[in-house]
Amino acid sequence: MSKISEDIILIDGLEYCNWNRDLFENAHKAGITAIHATLVYWENTEESFKKIEYWNDLFKEHQDIITHAKKTDDIFQAKKNNKVAIIFGFQNSAPIANDIFLVEKFFVKGLRFMQLTYNNQTSLGGGCFEPKDSGVSRFGKAVIEEMNRLGMIVDLSHAGKQTCIDAIEFSSKPVAISHANPTFFHKSIRNIDSDVLKKLAKKDGFIGLSLYPYHLKNLGDCKVEDFCSMIKDLINLIGDENIGIGSDLCLNWPDDVVMWMRNGKWTKKIDYGESKDKNPKWPELPKWYSKPSDLRNLLTSMCENNIAEKVALKIVGENWFNFMKNQF
Amino acid sequence: MSKISEDIILIDGLEYCNWNRDLFENAHKAGITAIHATLVYWENTEESFKKIEYWNDLFKEHQDIITHAKKTDDIFQAKKNNKVAIIFGFQNSAPIANDIFLVEKFFVKGLRFMQLTYNNQTSLGGGCFEPKDSGVSRFGKAVIEEMNRLGMIVDLSHAGKQTCIDAIEFSSKPVAISHANPTFFHKSIRNIDSDVLKKLAKKDGFIGLSLYPYHLKNLGDCKVEDFCSMIKDLINLIGDENIGIGSDLCLNWPDDVVMWMRNGKWTKKIDYGESKDKNPKWPELPKWYSKPSDLRNLLTSMCENNIAEKVALKIVGENWFNFMKNQF
Repeated sequence: MSKISEDIILIDGLEYCNWNRDLFENAHKAGITAIHATLVYWENTEESFKKIEYWNDLFKEHQDIITHAKKTDDIFQAKKNNKVAIIFGFQNSAPIANDIFLVEKFFVKGLRFMQLTYNNQTSLGGGCFEPKDSGVSRFGKAVIEEMNRLGMIVDLSHAGKQTCIDAIEFSSKPVAISHANPTFFHKSIRNIDSDVLKKLAKKDGFIGLSLYPYHLKNLGDCKVEDFCSMIKDLINLIGDENIGIGSDLCLNWPDDVVMWMRNGKWTKKIDYGESKDKNPKWPELPKWYSKPSDLRNLLTSMCENNIAEKVALKIVGENWFNFMKNQF
Repeated sequence: MSKISEDIILIDGLEYCNWNRDLFENAHKAGITAIHATLVYWENTEESFKKIEYWNDLFKEHQDIITHAKKTDDIFQAKKNNKVAIIFGFQNSAPIANDIFLVEKFFVKGLRFMQLTYNNQTSLGGGCFEPKDSGVSRFGKAVIEEMNRLGMIVDLSHAGKQTCIDAIEFSSKPVAISHANPTFFHKSIRNIDSDVLKKLAKKDGFIGLSLYPYHLKNLGDCKVEDFCSMIKDLINLIGDENIGIGSDLCLNWPDDVVMWMRNGKWTKKIDYGESKDKNPKWPELPKWYSKPSDLRNLLTSMCENNIAEKVALKIVGENWFNFMKNQF
């Protein structure tokens, strides 16, 4: 295979890290172009605005290596200036409460991805852990219209199947599932059935493939060969334009954060999410994907596993860039 | 018929008024024992706590004629002291956002009724205006358990049919539909099908009959004879223990409040609720039920319309009192 140029586009479609200098440097040194960073899960409106202020401080503190991207042109400029572009996302609609006008208020502050739901039902739609999925609600439709108008990506990760199908149909702009894998690879509540993937791609929607162990065949023991094999099967199913990586790396957090992600403040009991052995800890990551820089290594592995370099380059970044370009 | 004693129990299971001295005096002079007063619809947590403070000021200002009831014994004491007891309720779960711990925080401040939904889907369940009703969600079940534990009445007014059925089944304490009518009387989105009413009563649940024009046969032109005839049919269907009045009187508000009730901040378009002619005004009330004191007049009308006085007395207050007594 040819030597891969340094000057490539590497975009991670979702990370939720407790960011510090080391992590930013790890991404920067590997030449990561952009990262969609999760800001909040269960946080309410006020807490979410505060998280944005927290990030604005991070941008100042690490301005030599990271920058906030509000437009895809900002990603392009960041690359030119040798900085990692950070794109804001919410993994829930909790921050907008019942107020559609908050969508624009968060958009102005830089929010570019928002999930309709996080595991549980919200006033917008059904969550993947609910026994019954309402599909997209009346408020959900109103919010999707508003997101479409503004150029904020509708993210269906953690949504129920009917909600995914409804949103794919209803949204006037293509939607994303920023971090999940196909159920044909590993049958888990968070992964996506092939019929949904086909509908998604048919409407130019996007899936970011996840490295979160509960989404992987054999969890943290998943082999990169198997992951690459899944990518090839997925390309056969939906083509090679609508696929990227959304690693779902959750780094530098204590274990109580994974329990908080699962439980928020919605239950007084304990919910273990997809951990079948009721593990209250972060699951062990695959050795070949444990830090932001591993996106570049995955590119190499993909090529070694007989994915054409041209296609692999699309999947590690170009596709995400083109998808985002049509939204903001 | 015998002369009805002054010393009877008159409870209105729901009013949403812009309360002032005149309205309180109207209720007081008629000897209204207690009123379940709606505090909020779409308001968020902070706004809802503020509304409680606003009411605490009202209690001080009008302490000669009204008092806050947190226990049914407070209703009893209020009656002895010749005051109208006010019971707090929320017509939505918006105030608790995603935080189950807020249920107790509001309970401590006196909240005794909370609806799971208001027309639209919430994170707790489906609303009656949604094309698809999720039923009670995971968070909804957790909140119902918490309300049961505390002694806060689960109110299913404005919920979808499946959500009503799920909550009736799931709740360990009887639930209420504080203000609605049977669909056999008037087929409207907000009214309740007979199969649900039967399930409700079978589990000792409660319905407060509504005087809101969109819930009435012939709207504001509804005759009191027809209303009483409906009551008799309902008694035949579910017995006479589980029925009360929840007038849904909404007095002294400008017209923009009815539009706010329908639209909150959830849509940028206009939703007219059940107004088929897209009327942006408050609907005209039946002449025989336009103020809090009319509850006493309804008692007279019921007796005139061949409802036994003993039964009529249950319906205008005793039943509500007994229902509440088992909760708080």
